[in-house]
Amino acid sequence: MSLVLSEIGCHDRAIMSFLQKFKALQWPALGDPSLLTPWIQENLEVFIEGAVEASLSRKNQHNCPANLRESIRYSLLAPGKRIRPRLALACGQMLQIHPLAALSAGAAIEMIHCFTLIHDDLPCMDNDDFRRGRPSNHKVYGESLALLAGDALMACALDTLLLSRDSVPADHLLSALDRFSWASGARGVMGGQAQEFLLTAQSTRPQLETMFAGKTGALFSASLEIPMALAGLSDETREGKVISRFAAELGYAFQVADDIEDAEAPGSRESEKPQSILFYISAKQAAQETYSRLLRATDELKLCFGSKALALNAIAQEVLQKLQKQGQNRE
Amino acid sequence: MSLVLSEIGCHDRAIMSFLQKFKALQWPALGDPSLLTPWIQENLEVFIEGAVEASLSRKNQHNCPANLRESIRYSLLAPGKRIRPRLALACGQMLQIHPLAALSAGAAIEMIHCFTLIHDDLPCMDNDDFRRGRPSNHKVYGESLALLAGDALMACALDTLLLSRDSVPADHLLSALDRFSWASGARGVMGGQAQEFLLTAQSTRPQLETMFAGKTGALFSASLEIPMALAGLSDETREGKVISRFAAELGYAFQVADDIEDAEAPGSRESEKPQSILFYISAKQAAQETYSRLLRATDELKLCFGSKALALNAIAQEVLQKLQKQGQNRE
Repeated sequence: MSLVLSEIGCHDRAIMSFLQKFKALQWPALGDPSLLTPWIQENLEVFIEGAVEASLSRKNQHNCPANLRESIRYSLLAPGKRIRPRLALACGQMLQIHPLAALSAGAAIEMIHCFTLIHDDLPCMDNDDFRRGRPSNHKVYGESLALLAGDALMACALDTLLLSRDSVPADHLLSALDRFSWASGARGVMGGQAQEFLLTAQSTRPQLETMFAGKTGALFSASLEIPMALAGLSDETREGKVISRFAAELGYAFQVADDIEDAEAPGSRESEKPQSILFYISAKQAAQETYSRLLRATDELKLCFGSKALALNAIAQEVLQKLQKQGQNRE
Repeated sequence: MSLVLSEIGCHDRAIMSFLQKFKALQWPALGDPSLLTPWIQENLEVFIEGAVEASLSRKNQHNCPANLRESIRYSLLAPGKRIRPRLALACGQMLQIHPLAALSAGAAIEMIHCFTLIHDDLPCMDNDDFRRGRPSNHKVYGESLALLAGDALMACALDTLLLSRDSVPADHLLSALDRFSWASGARGVMGGQAQEFLLTAQSTRPQLETMFAGKTGALFSASLEIPMALAGLSDETREGKVISRFAAELGYAFQVADDIEDAEAPGSRESEKPQSILFYISAKQAAQETYSRLLRATDELKLCFGSKALALNAIAQEVLQKLQKQGQNRE
C-alpha cells in the first residue's frame, strides 16, 4: 500500500480504492482539447466526492458529525459549472503533472470557492436565500451550521491538496500550499471581500480592479498557479509569467463578461458606488477592451506552449466569444 | 538569503530581519524548566505579531486591506494565556526541533484558536459581546468583518506553519500540515462544535466526551502532536503514543478544571442538557478521577522522556494542583 494511504489510514475500503483508482489515472492525449471534456466529466465529480469523504473520516480519529457532513455535502456537491477545477485540469494537463495532483488542486480550489459562497450568503453578508436555484446553506441547516460548514471546508481543501503528496515532489507541494494560502486568505479572496466594504462613490477604477483581483481573481489565478507550483515551475520563468498573465486576464474577463450580462438583466440598475467596471466605462467599451486584453494573453500562451495550450485556449474562447457579442450588440 | 525568505519575498525589511532573528534562535538549556518561561516571554508575542504581518503582506502581491488587518490584529494580539503555544514550545524543546519550527507551530495553533473564538462570539453562535474583558470582534468591526477575520486567520495559520519550511525536512512538514488540518477541520474543532448542537438531555457521557475531544481537545492535542510531526516522530512509536496520551489527558483535564471553576462561579446553574461532565458526576468525583488520569499520563511522560519532559510536566502540575484543590474543598 502506498505511503499516503497508510498515513491517511482511511478506514473505508471505498475511499482506499477511490484513491488507488486516481493514482493509476492517465491524461487523455494532449493536443486534442475535445478529449479533455469527457475525461473531466468522468472523473471530476467522483473525485470531489471521494476527496471530501476522505477528509471527513479517517481511521482512529473522531469523524465528522452527521449534521456537519450533510451541510458540507449539500453545498459542495450541488451542481455547478466547476470552472476553477476545469482550469486547473487544463493547466495540469498542459504541464503534464500527475492527474491526481491536478484533480487535488482543482477540488481544493472548488472547496474554497464553495466555502466563500456559503459565508457570502449569510445574513451578515449578502443575505441571499438562494444559491444556484436551491435554498442557500443557512436556509436549510441554520446559520450556525452554515458558518461551521464554511469554516471546515478550508481544512477539507487543505486535506485534498495533500492527497497529491505521493504524486509530486514534497518541495513542489509546499510551494503549492503557499500559493493556496495566499489565494484563500487576507491577500486573496477574503482581502477582496473586505476591500469591497471600503469602496465609495469616490473610489477609482484601479481600486475597484484591486478589489476584484482579490475577490474573484485570486481563486482564478490560483487555479492555474497551483498546478504550476505542483509542476515545479516558478513564476519567475518566462513560462510562469505567461501563465500568470493569462490567468489574471482570464479571471478579469470572466468578471467583466458576467457584469455586462448582469447589467443587461431586467431590473438591474446603476448603484451609487462602483460594483463593476461599468461604473466607469460603457458596456461596449468594457467588452472591447477586455476582449483585446484576453486575446493578447491567449496568443502569448499559445506562442509559449503551442498545441499543449489548446484546452486552456478552448476555455478562453468561450469568454472571448461572449465578450465579442457583448461588444457588438449595442450602440 | 535563505530559500524561504526569497520565496516569500517579504517586501518589508523588518519582516525579513524578524525571520532571520528567529532562524538564529536557540533553545535555553534543557532540563531546567524555569528557563523556558522567560524565553517564551521574550519571543512568543514578537513571533506571533511578526508571523501575522508576514502573512498579510508580501512582495508583488495584493496586500491585506487595512480594515481586515485591523480586525485580525485586534483579536490575535489581545492579551491571552497562550496556553497552546506554551505547550507547543515545551514539546518542541523536549523533542529538540528548531525553535523557529516550534514557534511556527504554536503561533499557527493560536491563530486557529483565535479564529474559532471570533466566530464563536458571533450572534448566530454564542452571541457574546465580550471576550477576555474587551468588546468582541464583531462589536468593534461589525459581523461581516469579524466573519472575514476568522476566515482569513485559517490561511494566516497555514502561512505561519509554512515559515518552518527551511527548518525541518519537507516530509515532516507535510505530516505536520496533515495533523494541523485534522485539528482545524470537521474531524477536530469544527466537528466538536457541530456535535454540540446534537447533544440532548438523553446524550451519554461518552457522547459528551467525544464532543469535547473535538471542540477543545483537538487543538490541545495538536499543540503537542504538530511539534511531534515536525520532529519526524510517528504516533505509532512508543514515544509518540505517550505524547498523544498525555496531550489528550491534559486537554481533558483543562476542560474539567475549567468546568468545575465555572460551576462554582456565582449565578451558574444546571442546564437541561449536558454541557460538562458535571451533568453526570459530582465536582469532587470529577476532580479526583481527572487528577488520577492526568497524573498517570504525566508519570508515563516523565518515565519515557526523563528530565527532557520537565517543562511539559510543569504545565501539567498547574492543572494537577487546581484539580487537587477542587477534589478536596467539598463534601
